[in-house]
Amino acid sequence: MPTPAPKAFIFDVFGTVVDWRRGVAEEAARFYAARGIDADPFALADAWRDEYRPGMARVRHGERPYVPLDIIHRENLDFALEKLGLSEAFDAPSRDALNHAWEKLPAWPDSAEGLERLRAAGFVGTCSNGSVALMVRLARYAGLRWDAILGADTARDYKPSPITYRASAAALGLEPGEVMMVACHNNDLAAAAEAGLLTGWFPRPDEFGTGELIPADRDFDVMVDDIKALAARFGG
Amino acid sequence: MPTPAPKAFIFDVFGTVVDWRRGVAEEAARFYAARGIDADPFALADAWRDEYRPGMARVRHGERPYVPLDIIHRENLDFALEKLGLSEAFDAPSRDALNHAWEKLPAWPDSAEGLERLRAAGFVGTCSNGSVALMVRLARYAGLRWDAILGADTARDYKPSPITYRASAAALGLEPGEVMMVACHNNDLAAAAEAGLLTGWFPRPDEFGTGELIPADRDFDVMVDDIKALAARFGG
Repeated sequence: MPTPAPKAFIFDVFGTVVDWRRGVAEEAARFYAARGIDADPFALADAWRDEYRPGMARVRHGERPYVPLDIIHRENLDFALEKLGLSEAFDAPSRDALNHAWEKLPAWPDSAEGLERLRAAGFVGTCSNGSVALMVRLARYAGLRWDAILGADTARDYKPSPITYRASAAALGLEPGEVMMVACHNNDLAAAAEAGLLTGWFPRPDEFGTGELIPADRDFDVMVDDIKALAARFGG
Repeated sequence: MPTPAPKAFIFDVFGTVVDWRRGVAEEAARFYAARGIDADPFALADAWRDEYRPGMARVRHGERPYVPLDIIHRENLDFALEKLGLSEAFDAPSRDALNHAWEKLPAWPDSAEGLERLRAAGFVGTCSNGSVALMVRLARYAGLRWDAILGADTARDYKPSPITYRASAAALGLEPGEVMMVACHNNDLAAAAEAGLLTGWFPRPDEFGTGELIPADRDFDVMVDDIKALAARFGG
Protein backbone atom coordinates (compact mmCIF):
# COMPACT_ATOMS: atom_id res chain seq x y z
CA MET A 1 0.00 0.00 0.00
CA PRO A 2 1.50 3.36 -0.95
CA THR A 3 2.13 5.84 1.84
CA PRO A 4 -0.50 8.62 1.84
CA ALA A 5 1.05 11.99 1.02
CA PRO A 6 1.51 13.90 4.29
CA LYS A 7 0.20 17.44 4.54
CA ALA A 8 3.08 18.36 6.83
CA PHE A 9 6.55 17.11 7.69
CA ILE A 10 7.85 17.77 11.18
CA PHE A 11 11.50 17.15 11.95
CA ASP A 12 13.63 16.07 14.79
CA VAL A 13 16.46 18.61 14.65
CA PHE A 14 19.47 17.60 16.80
CA GLY A 15 21.19 14.89 14.78
CA THR A 16 18.57 14.69 12.04
CA VAL A 17 18.94 18.20 10.59
CA VAL A 18 22.06 19.58 12.29
CA ASP A 19 25.35 18.14 13.52
CA TRP A 20 25.06 18.90 17.24
CA ARG A 21 28.23 17.06 18.22
CA ARG A 22 30.57 18.97 15.93
CA GLY A 23 28.83 22.30 16.62
CA VAL A 24 29.03 21.94 20.39
CA ALA A 25 32.63 20.70 20.22
CA GLU A 26 33.71 23.60 18.02
CA GLU A 27 32.16 26.11 20.41
CA ALA A 28 33.71 24.30 23.39
CA ALA A 29 37.08 24.42 21.63
CA ARG A 30 36.86 28.21 21.46
CA PHE A 31 36.17 28.38 25.19
CA TYR A 32 38.97 25.88 25.93
CA ALA A 33 41.47 27.88 23.87
CA ALA A 34 40.59 31.11 25.72
CA ARG A 35 41.27 29.32 29.03
CA GLY A 36 44.35 27.34 28.01
CA ILE A 37 42.55 24.05 28.52
CA ASP A 38 44.21 21.14 26.75
CA ALA A 39 41.39 18.62 26.41
CA ASP A 40 39.21 17.03 23.74
CA PRO A 41 36.18 19.28 23.17
CA PHE A 42 34.22 16.36 21.69
CA ALA A 43 34.35 14.76 25.14
CA LEU A 44 32.39 17.75 26.48
CA ALA A 45 29.85 17.44 23.66
CA ASP A 46 29.38 13.76 24.52
CA ALA A 47 29.27 14.27 28.29
CA TRP A 48 26.79 17.12 27.89
CA ARG A 49 24.54 15.08 25.64
CA ASP A 50 24.72 12.10 28.05
CA GLU A 51 22.67 14.19 30.51
CA TYR A 52 20.06 15.07 27.85
CA ARG A 53 17.53 12.30 28.37
CA PRO A 54 17.73 12.12 32.19
CA GLY A 55 17.21 15.89 32.36
CA MET A 56 14.03 15.75 30.28
CA ALA A 57 12.77 12.56 31.92
CA ARG A 58 11.95 14.40 35.14
CA VAL A 59 9.59 16.66 33.19
CA ARG A 60 8.17 13.76 31.19
CA HIS A 61 7.44 11.82 34.37
CA GLY A 62 5.75 14.75 36.07
CA GLU A 63 8.47 15.17 38.71
CA ARG A 64 9.09 18.72 37.56
CA PRO A 65 6.97 21.34 35.76
CA TYR A 66 7.88 22.01 32.14
CA VAL A 67 10.93 24.19 31.64
CA PRO A 68 12.42 24.97 28.21
CA LEU A 69 15.38 22.87 27.12
CA ASP A 70 17.74 25.85 27.46
CA ILE A 71 17.39 25.58 31.24
CA ILE A 72 17.98 21.82 31.23
CA HIS A 73 21.01 22.29 28.97
CA ARG A 74 22.42 24.85 31.39
CA GLU A 75 21.99 22.50 34.36
CA ASN A 76 23.46 19.61 32.39
CA LEU A 77 26.50 21.70 31.51
CA ASP A 78 27.31 21.88 35.22
CA PHE A 79 27.19 18.10 35.45
CA ALA A 80 29.28 17.63 32.32
CA LEU A 81 31.99 20.06 33.40
CA GLU A 82 32.20 18.43 36.81
CA LYS A 83 32.47 14.99 35.23
CA LEU A 84 35.37 16.21 33.10
CA GLY A 85 37.11 17.92 36.03
CA LEU A 86 36.62 21.36 34.47
CA SER A 87 34.39 22.98 37.10
CA GLU A 88 37.06 25.41 38.22
CA ALA A 89 37.69 26.73 34.71
CA PHE A 90 34.17 28.01 34.05
CA ASP A 91 32.40 30.64 36.12
CA ALA A 92 28.65 31.12 35.88
CA PRO A 93 28.70 33.83 33.17
CA SER A 94 30.99 31.73 30.98
CA ARG A 95 28.69 28.74 31.42
CA ASP A 96 25.73 30.89 30.43
CA ALA A 97 27.65 31.93 27.32
CA LEU A 98 28.74 28.39 26.43
CA ASN A 99 25.13 27.23 26.80
CA HIS A 100 24.38 29.10 23.56
CA ALA A 101 26.52 26.52 21.72
CA TRP A 102 23.27 24.67 20.97
CA GLU A 103 22.16 27.63 18.84
CA LYS A 104 25.28 27.39 16.64
CA LEU A 105 25.13 23.95 15.10
CA PRO A 106 26.00 23.36 11.43
CA ALA A 107 23.36 21.84 9.17
CA TRP A 108 24.17 18.59 7.40
CA PRO A 109 25.03 19.31 3.74
CA ASP A 110 21.60 18.25 2.40
CA SER A 111 19.44 19.90 5.08
CA ALA A 112 18.80 23.49 3.97
CA GLU A 113 18.21 22.67 0.31
CA GLY A 114 16.25 19.52 1.13
CA LEU A 115 13.89 21.35 3.49
CA GLU A 116 13.34 24.08 0.92
CA ARG A 117 12.46 21.52 -1.76
CA LEU A 118 10.18 19.66 0.63
CA ARG A 119 8.12 22.81 1.17
CA ALA A 120 6.61 22.18 -2.26
CA ALA A 121 5.02 19.01 -0.85
CA GLY A 122 3.61 20.38 2.42
CA PHE A 123 4.26 22.36 5.55
CA VAL A 124 7.74 21.86 6.99
CA GLY A 125 8.28 22.37 10.69
CA THR A 126 10.27 21.27 13.68
CA CYS A 127 9.19 18.73 16.25
CA SER A 128 12.20 19.11 18.47
CA ASN A 129 12.79 19.13 22.18
CA GLY A 130 14.52 22.47 21.64
CA SER A 131 12.65 25.60 22.68
CA VAL A 132 11.30 28.18 20.26
CA ALA A 133 14.07 30.53 21.45
CA LEU A 134 16.72 27.94 20.62
CA MET A 135 15.16 26.85 17.32
CA VAL A 136 14.77 30.42 16.06
CA ARG A 137 18.44 31.17 16.64
CA LEU A 138 19.56 27.84 15.25
CA ALA A 139 17.45 28.33 12.11
CA ARG A 140 19.13 31.68 11.49
CA TYR A 141 22.61 30.22 12.15
CA ALA A 142 22.15 27.12 10.01
CA GLY A 143 20.13 28.76 7.23
CA LEU A 144 16.97 26.71 7.75
CA ARG A 145 13.45 27.83 6.87
CA TRP A 146 10.55 26.47 8.91
CA ASP A 147 6.86 27.13 8.40
CA ALA A 148 6.39 26.61 12.12
CA ILE A 149 8.47 25.75 15.15
CA LEU A 150 6.67 23.01 17.05
CA GLY A 151 7.56 20.34 19.57
CA ALA A 152 8.31 20.58 23.26
CA ASP A 153 7.28 24.23 23.77
CA THR A 154 4.02 23.54 21.92
CA ALA A 155 3.12 20.59 24.12
CA ARG A 156 4.95 21.69 27.27
CA ASP A 157 6.28 18.14 27.41
CA TYR A 158 9.24 16.36 25.86
CA LYS A 159 9.52 13.71 23.20
CA PRO A 160 9.02 10.79 23.24
CA SER A 161 5.81 11.62 25.18
CA PRO A 162 2.94 11.08 22.71
CA ILE A 163 1.43 14.50 23.46
CA THR A 164 4.47 16.20 21.93
CA TYR A 165 3.79 14.66 18.52
CA ARG A 166 0.01 15.01 18.75
CA ALA A 167 0.08 18.62 19.95
CA SER A 168 2.42 19.52 17.09
CA ALA A 169 0.01 18.04 14.54
CA ALA A 170 -2.95 19.70 16.25
CA ALA A 171 -1.21 23.10 16.20
CA LEU A 172 -1.12 22.77 12.41
CA GLY A 173 -4.82 21.95 12.36
CA LEU A 174 -4.06 18.42 11.17
CA GLU A 175 -4.80 14.88 12.31
CA PRO A 176 -1.76 12.85 13.44
CA GLY A 177 -2.11 10.61 10.38
CA GLU A 178 -1.77 13.64 8.08
CA VAL A 179 1.66 14.50 9.47
CA MET A 180 4.99 12.74 8.93
CA MET A 181 7.55 12.77 11.73
CA VAL A 182 11.04 12.71 10.25
CA ALA A 183 14.07 11.59 12.24
CA CYS A 184 17.23 9.51 12.12
CA HIS A 185 16.45 8.00 15.54
CA ASN A 186 14.50 4.79 15.97
CA ASN A 187 13.03 5.65 19.37
CA ASP A 188 11.70 9.04 18.18
CA LEU A 189 9.97 7.47 15.18
CA ALA A 190 8.61 4.54 17.17
CA ALA A 191 6.97 6.98 19.58
CA ALA A 192 5.61 9.10 16.74
CA ALA A 193 4.12 6.01 15.06
CA GLU A 194 2.55 5.02 18.36
CA ALA A 195 1.03 8.52 18.54
CA GLY A 196 -0.53 7.99 15.09
CA LEU A 197 1.88 9.93 12.87
CA LEU A 198 3.46 8.79 9.64
CA THR A 199 7.21 8.20 9.88
CA GLY A 200 10.12 9.14 7.66
CA TRP A 201 13.62 7.83 8.34
CA PHE A 202 17.13 8.31 7.03
CA PRO A 203 20.48 7.58 8.67
CA ARG A 204 23.04 10.09 9.93
CA PRO A 205 26.14 7.93 10.29
CA ASP A 206 28.27 10.88 11.36
CA GLU A 207 26.05 11.97 14.25
CA PHE A 208 28.29 10.37 16.87
CA GLY A 209 31.50 10.80 14.95
CA THR A 210 31.83 7.10 14.27
CA GLY A 211 30.70 6.85 10.66
CA GLU A 212 28.71 3.82 11.76
CA LEU A 213 25.27 3.62 10.20
CA ILE A 214 22.64 2.80 12.81
CA PRO A 215 20.00 0.85 10.88
CA ALA A 216 16.26 1.32 11.20
CA ASP A 217 14.95 -1.30 13.61
CA ARG A 218 11.59 -1.64 11.85
CA ASP A 219 9.86 -0.59 8.61
CA PHE A 220 9.03 3.08 8.77
CA ASP A 221 6.62 4.56 6.23
CA VAL A 222 9.36 6.16 4.18
CA MET A 223 13.04 5.18 4.33
CA VAL A 224 15.49 7.21 2.28
CA ASP A 225 19.07 8.46 2.28
CA ASP A 226 18.69 12.07 3.38
CA ILE A 227 16.38 15.12 3.29
CA LYS A 228 16.88 15.77 -0.41
CA ALA A 229 15.85 12.19 -1.13
CA LEU A 230 12.81 12.66 1.11
CA ALA A 231 11.83 15.75 -0.87
CA ALA A 232 12.33 13.88 -4.13
CA ARG A 233 10.05 11.09 -2.89
CA PHE A 234 7.25 13.64 -2.55
CA GLY A 235 7.91 15.42 -5.82
CA GLY A 236 10.14 18.22 -4.47
CA MET B 1 16.11 59.60 23.93
CA PRO B 2 16.64 57.25 21.01
CA THR B 3 14.61 54.04 20.97
CA PRO B 4 16.75 51.02 21.90
CA ALA B 5 17.13 48.64 18.96
CA PRO B 6 14.73 45.74 19.49
CA LYS B 7 16.05 42.20 19.19
CA ALA B 8 12.71 41.05 17.78
CA PHE B 9 9.69 42.55 16.05
CA ILE B 10 6.36 40.82 16.56
CA PHE B 11 3.43 41.80 14.40
CA ASP B 12 -0.27 42.09 14.62
CA VAL B 13 -1.37 40.45 11.37
CA PHE B 14 -5.06 41.10 10.56
CA GLY B 15 -5.11 44.68 9.31
CA THR B 16 -1.45 45.41 10.01
CA VAL B 17 0.14 42.93 7.59
CA VAL B 18 -2.79 41.66 5.51
CA ASP B 19 -6.03 43.14 4.18
CA TRP B 20 -8.53 40.90 5.99
CA ARG B 21 -11.61 42.81 4.77
CA ARG B 22 -10.87 42.49 1.07
CA GLY B 23 -9.69 38.90 1.43
CA VAL B 24 -12.76 37.76 3.32
CA ALA B 25 -15.07 39.67 0.96
CA GLU B 26 -13.46 38.16 -2.13
CA GLU B 27 -13.84 34.65 -0.74
CA ALA B 28 -17.42 35.40 0.31
CA ALA B 29 -18.12 36.69 -3.21
CA ARG B 30 -17.09 33.32 -4.66
CA PHE B 31 -19.49 31.55 -2.30
CA TYR B 32 -22.26 34.07 -3.07
CA ALA B 33 -21.81 33.60 -6.81
CA ALA B 34 -22.05 29.81 -6.49
CA ARG B 35 -25.36 30.23 -4.63
CA GLY B 36 -26.85 33.02 -6.71
CA ILE B 37 -26.80 35.40 -3.76
CA ASP B 38 -27.06 39.04 -4.75
CA ALA B 39 -25.58 40.86 -1.75
CA ASP B 40 -22.51 42.89 -0.81
CA PRO B 41 -19.79 40.47 0.31
CA PHE B 42 -18.07 43.28 2.22
CA ALA B 43 -21.10 43.36 4.51
CA LEU B 44 -20.32 39.76 5.49
CA ALA B 45 -16.68 40.64 6.15
CA ASP B 46 -17.78 43.48 8.40
CA ALA B 47 -20.51 41.51 10.19
CA TRP B 48 -18.12 38.60 10.74
CA ARG B 49 -15.44 40.88 12.16
CA ASP B 50 -17.98 42.60 14.41
CA GLU B 51 -18.20 39.35 16.38
CA TYR B 52 -14.41 39.08 16.70
CA ARG B 53 -13.82 40.84 20.00
CA PRO B 54 -16.89 39.52 21.84
CA GLY B 55 -15.94 35.97 20.81
CA MET B 56 -12.45 36.28 22.26
CA ALA B 57 -13.57 38.21 25.33
CA ARG B 58 -15.18 35.11 26.84
CA VAL B 59 -11.79 33.38 26.77
CA ARG B 60 -9.97 36.47 27.99
CA HIS B 61 -12.34 36.79 30.94
CA GLY B 62 -12.02 33.14 31.90
CA GLU B 63 -15.61 32.30 30.99
CA ARG B 64 -14.41 29.69 28.51
CA PRO B 65 -11.20 27.64 28.19
CA TYR B 66 -8.85 28.67 25.40
CA VAL B 67 -9.88 27.56 21.93
CA PRO B 68 -8.02 28.53 18.74
CA LEU B 69 -9.41 31.45 16.77
CA ASP B 70 -10.50 29.12 13.95
CA ILE B 71 -13.24 27.79 16.23
CA ILE B 72 -14.35 31.26 17.28
CA HIS B 73 -14.36 32.38 13.64
CA ARG B 74 -16.57 29.42 12.76
CA GLU B 75 -19.04 30.26 15.52
CA ASN B 76 -19.02 33.92 14.55
CA LEU B 77 -19.79 33.02 10.95
CA ASP B 78 -23.09 31.54 12.13
CA PHE B 79 -23.96 34.82 13.87
CA ALA B 80 -22.93 36.91 10.87
CA LEU B 81 -24.91 34.85 8.36
CA GLU B 82 -27.98 35.00 10.58
CA LYS B 83 -27.62 38.75 10.94
CA LEU B 84 -27.50 39.12 7.17
CA GLY B 85 -30.47 36.78 6.64
CA LEU B 86 -28.28 34.22 4.85
CA SER B 87 -28.61 31.28 7.23
CA GLU B 88 -30.62 29.21 4.78
CA ALA B 89 -28.07 29.56 2.00
CA PHE B 90 -25.16 27.95 3.84
CA ASP B 91 -25.14 24.41 5.19
CA ALA B 92 -22.55 23.32 7.76
CA PRO B 93 -19.97 21.98 5.27
CA SER B 94 -20.11 25.19 3.24
CA ARG B 95 -19.65 27.23 6.42
CA ASP B 96 -16.63 25.09 7.33
CA ALA B 97 -15.23 25.78 3.88
CA LEU B 98 -15.92 29.52 3.99
CA ASN B 99 -14.24 29.66 7.41
CA HIS B 100 -10.92 29.14 5.60
CA ALA B 101 -11.32 32.61 4.08
CA TRP B 102 -9.15 33.89 6.92
CA GLU B 103 -6.23 31.88 5.52
CA LYS B 104 -6.50 33.60 2.11
CA LEU B 105 -5.92 37.27 2.83
CA PRO B 106 -3.77 39.43 0.56
CA ALA B 107 -0.73 41.14 2.03
CA TRP B 108 -0.53 44.92 1.82
CA PRO B 109 1.91 45.92 -0.95
CA ASP B 110 4.80 46.71 1.42
CA SER B 111 4.40 43.72 3.74
CA ALA B 112 6.38 40.82 2.25
CA GLU B 113 9.37 42.88 1.19
CA GLY B 114 9.31 44.98 4.35
CA LEU B 115 9.30 41.92 6.62
CA GLU B 116 12.15 40.37 4.67
CA ARG B 117 14.22 43.55 5.01
CA LEU B 118 13.40 43.81 8.69
CA ARG B 119 14.89 40.36 9.29
CA ALA B 120 18.32 41.98 8.99
CA ALA B 121 17.54 43.93 12.17
CA GLY B 122 16.18 41.13 14.35
CA PHE B 123 13.79 38.23 14.63
CA VAL B 124 10.47 38.81 12.89
CA GLY B 125 7.41 36.98 14.14
CA THR B 126 3.68 37.19 14.57
CA CYS B 127 1.86 38.22 17.70
CA SER B 128 -1.61 37.60 16.36
CA ASN B 129 -4.81 36.22 17.77
CA GLY B 130 -4.77 33.81 14.84
CA SER B 131 -3.79 30.22 15.54
CA VAL B 132 -0.59 28.60 14.33
CA ALA B 133 -2.71 26.59 11.86
CA LEU B 134 -4.21 29.78 10.45
CA MET B 135 -0.95 31.75 10.41
CA VAL B 136 0.99 28.98 8.65
CA ARG B 137 -1.56 28.82 5.84
CA LEU B 138 -1.84 32.59 5.62
CA ALA B 139 1.94 32.96 5.45
CA ARG B 140 2.06 30.56 2.51
CA TYR B 141 -0.85 32.32 0.78
CA ALA B 142 0.44 35.85 1.27
CA GLY B 143 4.14 35.08 0.78
CA LEU B 144 5.24 36.07 4.27
CA ARG B 145 8.28 34.69 6.06
CA TRP B 146 8.22 34.50 9.86
CA ASP B 147 11.00 33.37 12.17
CA ALA B 148 8.34 32.25 14.62
CA ILE B 149 4.58 32.22 14.89
CA LEU B 150 3.66 33.54 18.32
CA GLY B 151 0.64 35.12 19.97
CA ALA B 152 -2.60 33.58 21.17
CA ASP B 153 -1.63 29.91 20.75
CA THR B 154 1.64 30.58 22.59
CA ALA B 155 -0.10 32.17 25.57
CA ARG B 156 -3.39 30.31 25.31
CA ASP B 157 -5.04 33.69 25.77
CA TYR B 158 -6.02 36.50 23.46
CA LYS B 159 -4.69 40.00 22.96
CA PRO B 160 -4.99 42.49 24.54
CA SER B 161 -4.37 40.32 27.63
CA PRO B 162 -0.84 41.18 28.82
CA ILE B 163 0.21 37.52 28.98
CA THR B 164 -0.12 37.24 25.20
CA TYR B 165 2.59 39.84 24.61
CA ARG B 166 4.80 38.66 27.47
CA ALA B 167 4.56 34.96 26.60
CA SER B 168 5.50 35.79 23.00
CA ALA B 169 8.63 37.65 24.14
CA ALA B 170 9.46 34.86 26.62
CA ALA B 171 9.13 32.21 23.90
CA LEU B 172 11.91 34.03 22.05
CA GLY B 173 14.05 34.03 25.20
CA LEU B 174 13.76 37.82 25.42
CA GLU B 175 12.62 40.37 27.97
CA PRO B 176 9.49 42.36 27.03
CA GLY B 177 11.61 45.51 26.64
CA GLU B 178 13.77 43.80 24.02
CA VAL B 179 10.79 43.17 21.75
CA MET B 180 8.81 45.63 19.62
CA MET B 181 5.10 45.01 19.06
CA VAL B 182 4.10 46.37 15.66
CA ALA B 183 0.51 47.20 14.79
CA CYS B 184 -1.74 49.74 13.14
CA HIS B 185 -4.20 49.58 16.06
CA ASN B 186 -3.99 51.87 19.07
CA ASN B 187 -5.52 49.44 21.56
CA ASP B 188 -3.12 46.63 20.63
CA LEU B 189 -0.09 48.85 21.07
CA ALA B 190 -1.37 50.41 24.28
CA ALA B 191 -1.73 46.95 25.78
CA ALA B 192 1.71 45.91 24.54
CA ALA B 193 3.28 49.02 26.07
CA GLU B 194 1.50 48.27 29.33
CA ALA B 195 3.01 44.76 29.19
CA GLY B 196 6.48 46.30 28.85
CA LEU B 197 7.12 45.93 25.13
CA LEU B 198 8.41 48.56 22.74
CA THR B 199 5.83 49.76 20.23
CA GLY B 200 5.94 50.40 16.49
CA TRP B 201 3.00 52.01 14.69
CA PHE B 202 1.97 52.81 11.14
CA PRO B 203 -1.47 53.51 9.71
CA ARG B 204 -3.50 51.29 7.37
CA PRO B 205 -6.10 53.71 6.05
CA ASP B 206 -7.61 51.07 3.77
CA GLU B 207 -8.26 48.50 6.51
CA PHE B 208 -11.95 49.35 6.74
CA GLY B 209 -12.36 50.38 3.14
CA THR B 210 -12.79 54.03 4.04
CA GLY B 211 -9.38 55.45 3.18
CA GLU B 212 -9.64 57.32 6.46
CA LEU B 213 -6.37 57.40 8.39
CA ILE B 214 -6.93 56.55 12.06
CA PRO B 215 -4.24 58.54 13.87
CA ALA B 216 -2.12 57.23 16.71
CA ASP B 217 -3.69 58.34 19.98
CA ARG B 218 -0.36 58.67 21.80
CA ASP B 219 3.39 58.68 21.06
CA PHE B 220 4.52 55.15 20.31
CA ASP B 221 8.24 54.34 20.28
CA VAL B 222 8.46 54.30 16.51
CA MET B 223 5.90 55.86 14.16
CA VAL B 224 6.40 55.36 10.45
CA ASP B 225 4.45 54.98 7.20
CA ASP B 226 4.58 51.22 6.61
CA ILE B 227 6.68 48.07 7.10
CA LYS B 228 9.34 49.07 4.59
CA ALA B 229 9.79 52.34 6.46
CA LEU B 230 10.02 50.43 9.74
CA ALA B 231 12.76 48.24 8.25
CA ALA B 232 14.58 51.32 6.97
CA ARG B 233 14.44 52.85 10.44
CA PHE B 234 16.41 49.87 11.75
CA GLY B 235 18.89 49.70 8.90
CA GLY B 236 17.08 47.15 6.73
